[in-house]
Amino acid sequence: MKKNSSYQSLVRHFTKIRNLQHLGAIASWDEAVMRPQGAGEYRAEAMAELHVLLNDLLCDPRLPEWLAEAQQAASPSDSWQAANLREMAREVSQATAVDSALVEAKTKASMRCEQTWRIKRAQNDWTGMKPLFQEVVRLARLEAQQRAAHSGLKPYDAMMDLHEPGMRSDQVDQLFFDLKNFLPDFIQRVLARQRSEGVLRPDGPFPIPQQRQLGLKAMEVLGFDFRHGRLDVSHHPFCGGVPHDVRITTRYQEHDFADNLMSVLHETGHALYEQGLPREWTHQPVSSARSMGIHESQSLLFEMQVGRSFHFLQYLSPIMKELLHLGPNEQAWSPEHLYRSLTRVKPDFIRVNADEVTYPAHVILRYEIERPLIEGRLEVEDIPEVWNQKMQQYLGLSTVGNFKDGPLQDVHWMGGTFGYFPSYTLGAMNAAQIFQAVYRDCPGLLDDFARGDLSRLRRWLGERIWSRGSFLEVNELLRQATGEVLNPKYFKQHLSYRYLERDWTQV
Amino acid sequence: MKKNSSYQSLVRHFTKIRNLQHLGAIASWDEAVMRPQGAGEYRAEAMAELHVLLNDLLCDPRLPEWLAEAQQAASPSDSWQAANLREMAREVSQATAVDSALVEAKTKASMRCEQTWRIKRAQNDWTGMKPLFQEVVRLARLEAQQRAAHSGLKPYDAMMDLHEPGMRSDQVDQLFFDLKNFLPDFIQRVLARQRSEGVLRPDGPFPIPQQRQLGLKAMEVLGFDFRHGRLDVSHHPFCGGVPHDVRITTRYQEHDFADNLMSVLHETGHALYEQGLPREWTHQPVSSARSMGIHESQSLLFEMQVGRSFHFLQYLSPIMKELLHLGPNEQAWSPEHLYRSLTRVKPDFIRVNADEVTYPAHVILRYEIERPLIEGRLEVEDIPEVWNQKMQQYLGLSTVGNFKDGPLQDVHWMGGTFGYFPSYTLGAMNAAQIFQAVYRDCPGLLDDFARGDLSRLRRWLGERIWSRGSFLEVNELLRQATGEVLNPKYFKQHLSYRYLERDWTQV
Repeated sequence: MKKNSSYQSLVRHFTKIRNLQHLGAIASWDEAVMRPQGAGEYRAEAMAELHVLLNDLLCDPRLPEWLAEAQQAASPSDSWQAANLREMAREVSQATAVDSALVEAKTKASMRCEQTWRIKRAQNDWTGMKPLFQEVVRLARLEAQQRAAHSGLKPYDAMMDLHEPGMRSDQVDQLFFDLKNFLPDFIQRVLARQRSEGVLRPDGPFPIPQQRQLGLKAMEVLGFDFRHGRLDVSHHPFCGGVPHDVRITTRYQEHDFADNLMSVLHETGHALYEQGLPREWTHQPVSSARSMGIHESQSLLFEMQVGRSFHFLQYLSPIMKELLHLGPNEQAWSPEHLYRSLTRVKPDFIRVNADEVTYPAHVILRYEIERPLIEGRLEVEDIPEVWNQKMQQYLGLSTVGNFKDGPLQDVHWMGGTFGYFPSYTLGAMNAAQIFQAVYRDCPGLLDDFARGDLSRLRRWLGERIWSRGSFLEVNELLRQATGEVLNPKYFKQHLSYRYLERDWTQV
Repeated sequence: MKKNSSYQSLVRHFTKIRNLQHLGAIASWDEAVMRPQGAGEYRAEAMAELHVLLNDLLCDPRLPEWLAEAQQAASPSDSWQAANLREMAREVSQATAVDSALVEAKTKASMRCEQTWRIKRAQNDWTGMKPLFQEVVRLARLEAQQRAAHSGLKPYDAMMDLHEPGMRSDQVDQLFFDLKNFLPDFIQRVLARQRSEGVLRPDGPFPIPQQRQLGLKAMEVLGFDFRHGRLDVSHHPFCGGVPHDVRITTRYQEHDFADNLMSVLHETGHALYEQGLPREWTHQPVSSARSMGIHESQSLLFEMQVGRSFHFLQYLSPIMKELLHLGPNEQAWSPEHLYRSLTRVKPDFIRVNADEVTYPAHVILRYEIERPLIEGRLEVEDIPEVWNQKMQQYLGLSTVGNFKDGPLQDVHWMGGTFGYFPSYTLGAMNAAQIFQAVYRDCPGLLDDFARGDLSRLRRWLGERIWSRGSFLEVNELLRQATGEVLNPKYFKQHLSYRYLERDWTQV
């Protein structure tokens, strides 16, 4: 009785944590979408107060005892309860690994660094940025050491584990080594091929209300549940809120409908995962999304494998033409030309604007810098040079003196986040592998897409990914869903079919 | 040193409370303006979690000791600190007065009752509403008794004190007795006079984007600080958020621009008070608005004394004509006809739609029902009959069988709020008295209005009301600002000048 009640105490405690996180999630969304300019400081203070409170709740001294008792008493037949206890223990362990003075110091330093970065980036001012960034790195190294000591992992792995549970840098090394060998030559062949391929692009401007209508239509086709979510506008698109109230955002540019449409498809992919998480475990850690790499696989799958497929564009083409076709160039709205323009490859400086072929180069470059940086084998002042070398090597671009399009372009490091970048490319690999499995299990799937029917895809993902929450570890989730653990060959296959063979019957 | 640190502990504790209330305020705004339909239940749970947490923080057992030590150690010369301690003690006392089981039971019963009311009101179903409402009344009576025992006040007074600190029903009786004698005959005289007064009304529809533009222009003229607030849309207009981020809302009807404009002026009045609260005491109880009656005085002053004045309409008339004038009837946009239509009196069933002359009758009726109800001298089943009697007596209207336009029209009682209604009419009285004082201190004030210049009015209110927060008790605030404590003669004067004498040089 006592032991069973320990589990109930844990359930109650995590319900409290999730309820308060719910309010924090709404306030974060509001921060990006609604907050008037002058209220930033007080909002930041209120959010910091909540984070301290949540950290205190996870460091509650009663939790380890409750966990031990509940684990002993757990029925072996109730595997979801066991998984929930495992995930509770993970959250507690991550929160207690770092001493609170360091948490506070790093939070403050990161906030200061990020605020300054918003100005210094625009000024291309690396030197002015360096002192604050060095302080963030110093504290992140300490954090990594404390997490390593607590978990027995290597320092960088301990940081990556926060976003990608179970993933280790040895495995990332292997996966990225494989891609690094494949990509440079592949990119050149794609570029050569695309040089001879004519692309007609629709003429803008594309009025924003019509772009919004197109986005809402796409969300509807993908299966977004508007009773449990909304679409709004922010500077950078994101997916926020809580599973019962998923808030995705996009941005509009009058001369670029594709940026808007693709960001809506991407964020809707994230949203479908959140909306499909197991409701019977709401508020419990086991009901959370499995990892950032799985989350990104869902957004990329709907943006890349579905949204940029020839078949789905066959469905979208007449809708887009009706909503957005204002100029004379009707042929540009054909599925063929939409497909060509939405799969155009161009090596460039900025990660967030990269196509799916060159994107991994941006991620590998960052991984190869942030890992030695956290391990103390690379210093902040060496970053620009290493950055430039790797950009030359992977994409043939020089970033000498161009900090704002080089190491100052991303917010992650400035905000103290290290070990996150691999998740983007793990996501792309997961997406290709998962999609290949759906394709195998659902004959004629691409014809569904051409009719705007995503129901079989949604059902497959819902059953094998979304509704499983954090019930399984990442490897086992992928194995049960696709038949094997992560294998980079599917991503390479996807790129080859799409970008070299131009085989529309494949993905 | 120990004692001084008690005060610092209190300051820190209340900063934490206000930071968490900040997130709750944003979530409440989101609930009314943004939340998708399906997320209601989980949002309610998250909000309830926050309320429990805030109540726990106010019932922290260390607080009485800190308060006692800090009060002993307080420097007599620091009157703001003393006032802050008084307001801290008030919040602690209000939170600890009711036992937590009752708080929880009443919160749940009220939530159930309010949810059911949204359906039953539309169905005019008093009988179906009665059981849930009786349970709310039963628990509210218990709450009133516990608050009475804790404070030494009478039960109803203990409830009213939550909204109107220091106000007692003996004084409300006197103020309302005076109005009750004045109003019925006065209303008849105004109706007789207005019968012979021709009013031209502008023809709609008035496009919503133009209505919004007019509202934003009016907010700008009143001095709303858009760096610290926003205007959005909700079912019922309200003023929410926090002083650094004030969220006001309005609603739009294509055929009624006046409803929108007047609600914007009203909520902007609330917002100006919030934005003008003392920033150097942010997060501390002494920086909060003084009382609901003072809050309502600011909204009513800007809606009634300013917004519906002939002089301000002289300023607004050309702006309104330019934005909204689509039909042929140009004369209807003259200041004279706008003034006549915006000061038209018509006894009707619904409080929230009432003009300023008949409004007090709605409030007095509710006060005369809720007070004996809380004191156990009146039962729920007797309410419809008493309601009808009083409506007949005060406004000459029958509500027999018409529950939805009778006792089911307001949410307050259904949600467990008793002792709040008097604040509306206290607000109207405060507004008239305060405005008379400004008028006296600022010669030619109405000419300012005719030029759209509210700077002298804002400065006066900012110095004497807004920036004082809760530094003074209500009586003293009014005495220092206007020269005397609340005197109902100013409200009667305001009504007489405006509605009988039609004297535009007075207010």
